[in-house]
Amino acid sequence: MKIALNSKQARCHVWKMVVCGLGIVCMGVPAAFGRAAEPPAPKPMTMAEIVAAAKPDDWRALDPENALYMELAGGRVVIELAPAFAPRHAANVKALAREHYFDGLAILRVQDNYVTQWGDPGADNPPSARKIHKAQATLPAEFDRAIDAKIPFALLPDGDVYAGEVGFSDGFPAARDKRSGRMWLTHCYGMVGAGRGNASDSGGGTDIYVVIGQAPRHLDRNCTLFGRVVQGMELLSSLPRGSGPMGFYEKPEQLVPIQSIRVAADVPPAERTDLEIMRTDSDTFRRLVESRRNRPDEWFLFKAGCVELCNVPVPLRKKSAPASQ
Amino acid sequence: MKIALNSKQARCHVWKMVVCGLGIVCMGVPAAFGRAAEPPAPKPMTMAEIVAAAKPDDWRALDPENALYMELAGGRVVIELAPAFAPRHAANVKALAREHYFDGLAILRVQDNYVTQWGDPGADNPPSARKIHKAQATLPAEFDRAIDAKIPFALLPDGDVYAGEVGFSDGFPAARDKRSGRMWLTHCYGMVGAGRGNASDSGGGTDIYVVIGQAPRHLDRNCTLFGRVVQGMELLSSLPRGSGPMGFYEKPEQLVPIQSIRVAADVPPAERTDLEIMRTDSDTFRRLVESRRNRPDEWFLFKAGCVELCNVPVPLRKKSAPASQ
Repeated sequence: MKIALNSKQARCHVWKMVVCGLGIVCMGVPAAFGRAAEPPAPKPMTMAEIVAAAKPDDWRALDPENALYMELAGGRVVIELAPAFAPRHAANVKALAREHYFDGLAILRVQDNYVTQWGDPGADNPPSARKIHKAQATLPAEFDRAIDAKIPFALLPDGDVYAGEVGFSDGFPAARDKRSGRMWLTHCYGMVGAGRGNASDSGGGTDIYVVIGQAPRHLDRNCTLFGRVVQGMELLSSLPRGSGPMGFYEKPEQLVPIQSIRVAADVPPAERTDLEIMRTDSDTFRRLVESRRNRPDEWFLFKAGCVELCNVPVPLRKKSAPASQ
Repeated sequence: MKIALNSKQARCHVWKMVVCGLGIVCMGVPAAFGRAAEPPAPKPMTMAEIVAAAKPDDWRALDPENALYMELAGGRVVIELAPAFAPRHAANVKALAREHYFDGLAILRVQDNYVTQWGDPGADNPPSARKIHKAQATLPAEFDRAIDAKIPFALLPDGDVYAGEVGFSDGFPAARDKRSGRMWLTHCYGMVGAGRGNASDSGGGTDIYVVIGQAPRHLDRNCTLFGRVVQGMELLSSLPRGSGPMGFYEKPEQLVPIQSIRVAADVPPAERTDLEIMRTDSDTFRRLVESRRNRPDEWFLFKAGCVELCNVPVPLRKKSAPASQ
């Protein structure tokens, strides 16, 4: 047990206890305190060991009705939608996909350490702009939503600079504020949102961005996040950065074509990417968070004792068997 | 003045006041409190406006004796060294560059949302490994250092999940812990460190990594950070991700050749990239931090009221005139 408390780990605990003292987060005093009187703890497991030991119930299948496949020349990007937080945007992006709105459009912008964004290169030139049929061009914002006991929220123990509480809701990084009664998805790496103009209701899912760098948390509650890339992020993060303002590509030949975006359920089963995502309300995920706070891997000479929301990975695996759910 | 306090902004202030109450950070109560009794504040400036209005004294020239140029087929990466935090590593990497150790070596590894790393592809095969002449193969760790009043530290006001205090030291993101009397550089996007094996003294600058994703702050105090990419990050962040474990390239033809790494002072003046970096101990930088906490740009409908260390950019510009310093 080399993961004894040291002075640096205690730093996190001080923060947590301070917050608890005011009744804001109130996670309780961490188990590390008072450990001297307890029986020896079992040997901590690495993330790889925790994932390998996970039980079938620790996983949920990615619902094909709630997932998009974005097909690029380099491969497939799989996006899980978040209808619990952005029901209208999730439904509208599916409607856009089902009328083939995105097919043949392009990635327009890659701004280093910020976002990759796609949409219609002809959008500013109405005669050549892609037509929308049954879907909506714009929607009212879904920046946040009311806290609801039916929406899971697996609280993280170490606080956050931007929000009162942070944690995971069905695999999505999220925050909440009990005083205002609101909760929202947060701009971590891989989160997918609807671009907009200055007006809150000027987006709707025709222009989509994904976070490719340090979490731009100042965008929280300024944009509607409606999904998360669960596989294929490297296809969006390794693209050439655009040389124009905000990383826009300046020449038509630089645009990265989108072959198609499909709802996974509309793709023949044999062509689907069947994935399972670890349940973030499971004890296994709680153990994983603890393992990320104090990494037991031999390489780590200093244990942080804390973990930030956007540094917690949500494990993913290929679906093991049709009956696993 | 649309940047009035709202309930979400107050969240940050609560955290800050709590911490102040314990004498840990003690930044003082933010100016927003009690503003009602003060005269109207001037119109807040955007970052672009603050940079444009900066005075010559707000900038310092990048010292060519303290900078490296890494030449890739795609262009030049400029790295500023941090001898105040890692004097032996900064000196050793310069010594390695001066004996042309890196010339013809390669980028070996690009792990998505983590690091790009370079070194000697033949290092594990001694007969073909690059020879080291006067420089050191390994060094004792420089993970942190004693707090010293002579080392600047421009404290940020919004706290941190991982450290007691965070701020900037001569342009480098840093943290400190007054109880232990230690300070250290932090793993924000673009920070450059020495790869190592399991032993703390198994690195020394022959293997170098740069952060290309969400800040892996769990590496703080586990690796020696000795510099920061100030220009050319996109050349390192947009490389294809390696398909092997930890993002290592698996085929020799995937390796990205390094033409050379030179100390800038060794490059003829006409071929140098002359840059100026905003002084992070200036009032102008303090205004910039405030502008990042509450973005005055019309697009922002919600003001975060806080900013995380790794979300604060340090402005850079081409050197305006030889006499500007």
